[in-house]
Amino acid sequence: MFRRDLQVVVDHPRPRRRPGEALIRVLAAGICGTDLEITEGYRDFGGVLGHEFVGRVAEADTLGLNGIRVCGEINISCLGCTMCTKGLTSHCLKRTVMGISGHDGCFADYVVLPERNLHAVPDAVTDEAATFVEPLAAAFEIADQVQLQGMASMAILGDGRLAAVIGLVLSALGHDPLVIGKHQEKLSRLSGIGLRTMINTRELPKDLDLIVEATGSGSGLETALQIARPRGTVVMKTTAAKKSPVDLSVAVVKELNLIGSRCGPFRPAIEALAANRIDVEPLVTDRFDLVDGVDAFHRAREKDAHKVLLHISD
Amino acid sequence: MFRRDLQVVVDHPRPRRRPGEALIRVLAAGICGTDLEITEGYRDFGGVLGHEFVGRVAEADTLGLNGIRVCGEINISCLGCTMCTKGLTSHCLKRTVMGISGHDGCFADYVVLPERNLHAVPDAVTDEAATFVEPLAAAFEIADQVQLQGMASMAILGDGRLAAVIGLVLSALGHDPLVIGKHQEKLSRLSGIGLRTMINTRELPKDLDLIVEATGSGSGLETALQIARPRGTVVMKTTAAKKSPVDLSVAVVKELNLIGSRCGPFRPAIEALAANRIDVEPLVTDRFDLVDGVDAFHRAREKDAHKVLLHISD
Repeated sequence: MFRRDLQVVVDHPRPRRRPGEALIRVLAAGICGTDLEITEGYRDFGGVLGHEFVGRVAEADTLGLNGIRVCGEINISCLGCTMCTKGLTSHCLKRTVMGISGHDGCFADYVVLPERNLHAVPDAVTDEAATFVEPLAAAFEIADQVQLQGMASMAILGDGRLAAVIGLVLSALGHDPLVIGKHQEKLSRLSGIGLRTMINTRELPKDLDLIVEATGSGSGLETALQIARPRGTVVMKTTAAKKSPVDLSVAVVKELNLIGSRCGPFRPAIEALAANRIDVEPLVTDRFDLVDGVDAFHRAREKDAHKVLLHISD
Repeated sequence: MFRRDLQVVVDHPRPRRRPGEALIRVLAAGICGTDLEITEGYRDFGGVLGHEFVGRVAEADTLGLNGIRVCGEINISCLGCTMCTKGLTSHCLKRTVMGISGHDGCFADYVVLPERNLHAVPDAVTDEAATFVEPLAAAFEIADQVQLQGMASMAILGDGRLAAVIGLVLSALGHDPLVIGKHQEKLSRLSGIGLRTMINTRELPKDLDLIVEATGSGSGLETALQIARPRGTVVMKTTAAKKSPVDLSVAVVKELNLIGSRCGPFRPAIEALAANRIDVEPLVTDRFDLVDGVDAFHRAREKDAHKVLLHISD
């Protein structure tokens, strides 16, 4: 398994499941920008990394689950706190988060999750595509938070992994977002999957109804505030390790609505993949075996890499 | 009149009204935090300062307006741009703003505003109370932007002029906000007008439904993000001259809703004053004649001053 503080992949005891939990044999997993941020100090997490995966249930209380191919929601909730009792389990005040906070992640042979976190993956969805369910779900969260209908002009700031899945999801929902990025090479990849793109060095559009800030850098918000129309909406997706100086008086004067957006619903993501409304395969640039996890992380930082997957062989 | 770049009060030609505009003899005006920010460089404005006033119409096209006591909305809109045609005239893309941007303000004997910007002040409202209509309207804007019903826990961050009017308005609307500030002396004044207060050095409450950030300092937002509940709402009222480093990943993880809030509706503010549902008189700590405007600005910066008014004598 691969931990933030390690320079090599090490052996680690197989996790033990408690009642209500499933032990899952990981088949494949994706490296996310958050994983890279954690290695730079974000969240101060010292456990096993990884939160995007597909696997097969090895042991569970519910017998029907055994052998099923699944992906899993990453927030492990208490079900008893004020947030959980309101149905906001992803905001559980006592939650741990797989691979991010207090719960070992999926860059390992086995991972443990509560059975209720698991979603069966239909045969129509490949292992590699299934590793995208978690980030796609986070993109579908935007549609749950914002009334997208009637928003004529939309932009996504950023040209990386996060921007790509958001672009795919907004397109699948019938919108035509403009992806604005700083790297021509990355933008070309996104054009290749059918997204409208624009390099940030040109004069940017303005008075946009919706901007999704997905640069992964704290400085992206400043641009978002500039190009939003008065009373426009900015969805904030970036969780960066560093603080950034922001002039929020622009948001006050324009009376902007800034919405933080994190994890989202798995079901529409799985359905969109199964129905071929979203094709993520062109986004996979690299595949590594888990034993080469350190190399995979180095590769994921390179500008010409997009999605780097880890395959976990027997 | 008093300009940002002047150290003395100077003579200035009486402003000329154009068709559709009224010339107003100013009776009294209030110094606002934004005026102080402008003298520190905010908005790079070089005209006559001042945007909170009561006056008497000296000349207007509409004969019935002459001699009427009025206060006035500060955004001067084009009525033709995409924002104006949507009814969002305070967000007019070509607007000037009295005393803030491109239009001389009310720290002068006379000020000019479009007739449509004016609101008659009922006899029940004193001159001094009427100078508070503009900031009270900005506080009423919160009720237009946020569904306050059902929000059980509310806090206002800040203990200055902005926090006070927001506290008065939220109270008048039937809520019981907690005002959190850093200055015991200022908090005592706010307790004196019936607001619940708390010093910021004690352990702050958390998981609040609504926080109104009105510290006037860029650093207030960081506290607001910390004490908001997941999916909570933060209303941003501060327009500061300086950028502040903010860790917005908290807003992403908690999926907070941040709403910029600026100018608001004059009518409920005037009605609340006329019906004695809001009493602003205890907030006036100092009165100066316009000719002593420079002293008034120095005074307005002192910690034990709250509202400093300018009276404009013949």
